[in-house]
Amino acid sequence: MNAQQSYKLSNRLYHMDNSVIQVGDKTVGGQELAVIAGPSSVESEDQILELAKKVKECGAGFLRGGAFKPGTSPLELLKLAREETGLPIVTEITSADMLGRFAEDVDIIQVGARNMKNFKLLKELGRIRKPILLKRGLSATIDELLMSAEYIMSEGNSSVILCERGIRTFETYTRNTLDISAVLALKKLSHLPVIVDPSHAAGLWWMVEPLAKAAIAVGADGIMIEIHNDPVSARINGQQSIKPERLMALMEDVAKMKCFSRIGGD
Amino acid sequence: MNAQQSYKLSNRLYHMDNSVIQVGDKTVGGQELAVIAGPSSVESEDQILELAKKVKECGAGFLRGGAFKPGTSPLELLKLAREETGLPIVTEITSADMLGRFAEDVDIIQVGARNMKNFKLLKELGRIRKPILLKRGLSATIDELLMSAEYIMSEGNSSVILCERGIRTFETYTRNTLDISAVLALKKLSHLPVIVDPSHAAGLWWMVEPLAKAAIAVGADGIMIEIHNDPVSARINGQQSIKPERLMALMEDVAKMKCFSRIGGD
Amino acid sequence: MNAQQSYKLSNRLYHMDNSVIQVGDKTVGGQELAVIAGPSSVESEDQILELAKKVKECGAGFLRGGAFKPGTSPLELLKLAREETGLPIVTEITSADMLGRFAEDVDIIQVGARNMKNFKLLKELGRIRKPILLKRGLSATIDELLMSAEYIMSEGNSSVILCERGIRTFETYTRNTLDISAVLALKKLSHLPVIVDPSHAAGLWWMVEPLAKAAIAVGADGIMIEIHNDPVSARINGQQSIKPERLMALMEDVAKMKCFSRIGGD
Amino acid sequence: MNAQQSYKLSNRLYHMDNSVIQVGDKTVGGQELAVIAGPSSVESEDQILELAKKVKECGAGFLRGGAFKPGTSPLELLKLAREETGLPIVTEITSADMLGRFAEDVDIIQVGARNMKNFKLLKELGRIRKPILLKRGLSATIDELLMSAEYIMSEGNSSVILCERGIRTFETYTRNTLDISAVLALKKLSHLPVIVDPSHAAGLWWMVEPLAKAAIAVGADGIMIEIHNDPVSARINGQQSIKPERLMALMEDVAKMKCFSRIGGD
Repeated sequence: MNAQQSYKLSNRLYHMDNSVIQVGDKTVGGQELAVIAGPSSVESEDQILELAKKVKECGAGFLRGGAFKPGTSPLELLKLAREETGLPIVTEITSADMLGRFAEDVDIIQVGARNMKNFKLLKELGRIRKPILLKRGLSATIDELLMSAEYIMSEGNSSVILCERGIRTFETYTRNTLDISAVLALKKLSHLPVIVDPSHAAGLWWMVEPLAKAAIAVGADGIMIEIHNDPVSARINGQQSIKPERLMALMEDVAKMKCFSRIGGD
Repeated sequence: MNAQQSYKLSNRLYHMDNSVIQVGDKTVGGQELAVIAGPSSVESEDQILELAKKVKECGAGFLRGGAFKPGTSPLELLKLAREETGLPIVTEITSADMLGRFAEDVDIIQVGARNMKNFKLLKELGRIRKPILLKRGLSATIDELLMSAEYIMSEGNSSVILCERGIRTFETYTRNTLDISAVLALKKLSHLPVIVDPSHAAGLWWMVEPLAKAAIAVGADGIMIEIHNDPVSARINGQQSIKPERLMALMEDVAKMKCFSRIGGD
Repeated sequence: MNAQQSYKLSNRLYHMDNSVIQVGDKTVGGQELAVIAGPSSVESEDQILELAKKVKECGAGFLRGGAFKPGTSPLELLKLAREETGLPIVTEITSADMLGRFAEDVDIIQVGARNMKNFKLLKELGRIRKPILLKRGLSATIDELLMSAEYIMSEGNSSVILCERGIRTFETYTRNTLDISAVLALKKLSHLPVIVDPSHAAGLWWMVEPLAKAAIAVGADGIMIEIHNDPVSARINGQQSIKPERLMALMEDVAKMKCFSRIGGD
Repeated sequence: MNAQQSYKLSNRLYHMDNSVIQVGDKTVGGQELAVIAGPSSVESEDQILELAKKVKECGAGFLRGGAFKPGTSPLELLKLAREETGLPIVTEITSADMLGRFAEDVDIIQVGARNMKNFKLLKELGRIRKPILLKRGLSATIDELLMSAEYIMSEGNSSVILCERGIRTFETYTRNTLDISAVLALKKLSHLPVIVDPSHAAGLWWMVEPLAKAAIAVGADGIMIEIHNDPVSARINGQQSIKPERLMALMEDVAKMKCFSRIGGD
């Protein structure tokens, strides 16, 4: 069987136009570039509120934040930040028992690379009506990513955003190797929006800005950026987080990239 | 031993400023973007003259051409094209016995991915005074590429241009995986110019333009592009060659990317 | 930080002798070779009973079986097969909500490659008192596999069996590349038993026997083999399953390999 | 085009029986196991004569030795060792200009991993009548290795021995990952003999013996082992060389593996 025929719902053959996913008054996959920014981990109310305001000021459209510390309530803090700023929130689901709360409270539910082949979780996410941000697994092929999207879509949820975040190769200078060509392949094979996460791919903060620009130049529909007010003392992933002022600089550069049109369904 | 200390001459630690390599009245590694274009294989006098004129018209700075057919004299044809257009010529050396003629006639001598670890050839190239375009091997790490540059430089030739052209990974949608982060790593570790070859990396003509833009966005000093008047009937590598009119379009887009400054020696 | 110091409980530095894991009247990691065999998927009562008897006849010590069809009760069928044959049963846990039943009914609980970094599940498995068979992830390094073992052991369960089952590389002739050297590395770094699954690694039935012998020759503590009475019509993974008579032949060859002593804690 | 049809002369489809290559009074690919042993680098007359005698005593059939120091005449020293012991000699050709002497003096000419795609050299080796030991490139697929054999054979030299010596993967514990399954794939696809080099694959001396046994268990036609009297002070590759007494122990274990028949042309 030809791999390209094993996925149908995400296949551009059967749906020529780009899918545009509505998230409140914002879109992913349409004319505007989706910029998702925030800390790797929600550490405190002060931290997330301060960073959320910075994200807003920079002109980014979405607030992301991870929940790594058991016992706190990072989702509550993200909701507070959304209330303050109006930014939709993006956060990762790590097990099916979080589904109820996430379906209610989260604007875009992220599936991490580690869960890309957690088919049971994918099926359950297919039964809710929230956009899913599906990250490519560390060693997943492009076809396998699309097959995972198919699992979600086949249950009825067609709001899937694909995310390239680096693959494992023999090169160890970067944490993973950002597969920039995958954006082109995914846009050709599928009508779904494709974003890029340079923070996790490289694992090196000083690569984040130029890789984000490369992602936009190649035609990605959005970028996901980790920021932190004080990366050196960040609880986790500090080495891959940039300061808010660097996000501001990036957004200014990005604004000059209007020349790069999104990749359409020619 | 720390790998970064095993190469010295190419190391930015000991040479903070970017190396700018002079080729006739053009430069690689300086303010201008180096665009090298031409056919994968020099097929005939008509073909190379026509393509050379197109390369010139598009505003690209260098003419490339490979010599794959035994019995013809592609180097003579490239020299003719240089005479007609004034474009410096770039072509690949595949064995040390070509060195005499290449040292005399070629403007930039290319070492292909397959020869990146041909240390004997590298040493001989170190003893001449022509710029060397050193391509990264299919499975070479960033450190190994710099070690190969060191072989050349240690013999006295400091005019080395590094070229990222894709690495072999588990992903088979593209022929190789363009390691866009390698540009950043190489510019950080070394003062040598770094260019990108999207044609060989992806092996897919429709990826060449966006990947070239990504390379520029990330801060590459140049790009190397395969073109052909009639890709479908090209002797080899037709599937990775773009038509001259697409190169023209790419050059127009590239002109809008002035905002992206080269990566300097901060 | 040196990776080898990041895991402690599984580290041979702190526990020189091989761990021998008792499962009923059998052991894994001791003098006898552990042979685990059975179908990829439990399809019916007749099927599993017939195969279990064959496994027993061949002299293999453990019965494995997967549960892929929702609605049936493969665990009940495996228990029935255990009752009939006395063979301990090995089966895979795919989500934490299966933990209660598995802790009670299963003799060795398998964690599949996909769940090797499901740290939440690993922690929960650390709190029960059943041996865990932990498979290496498709793109997991040897260090990462040991870190996952550490997650289980740090909660109190020290009965962990490591399993090499192939890694993803650029080579596509086999489904994955069996990393036979990993057995040696794991035995050196850790005191835990190490077994090999040639069926999933190669994905090709005709490679299973010779790869199993290679695993024993290199010093593995056991092998895990998929068998099926009629591989062509197997529900899944038929192409990687051997017939029971081939298992018998393999067991005879294995008996001649007494010369190969297990790898000790010298 | 199906890859398996792109090579013909090495293809088992067209030549069902195993090729047996005669080297003096010894064979490769027949009933006896070919054991090639010797130092990574020929360092002096004393060294090579002493090691050659040990190789002979151990019962290995062939003496290998590399020539890394310019200015000495390692080939002359190898010839001297051959005279003393009667062992055929195996050494690596690194450029075409060595061809004349090698065709005359060497018993098996080795093509290193780095030159596996040096098609010009392969063609020239095809025109002589000495057995060629062709090593798999670091990132070469099984198909590519067979294509390289085809280059040699298409010029008339059908005495090609294939050698698996590890591939580059994400795992860095070993220098490369020994692809033990490749032996099986090569024996199935081709009638040519297949040997394994565990020394270069692992890069770790303590893995050499068990990996050699795994190679034999899987059905390889031979093994190539680096030995050194004093590995710690070896000029190069000391960490992957075993002492002669370990080779003796290995040969004794290997003798017990008579049960493992070579892989035939069923």
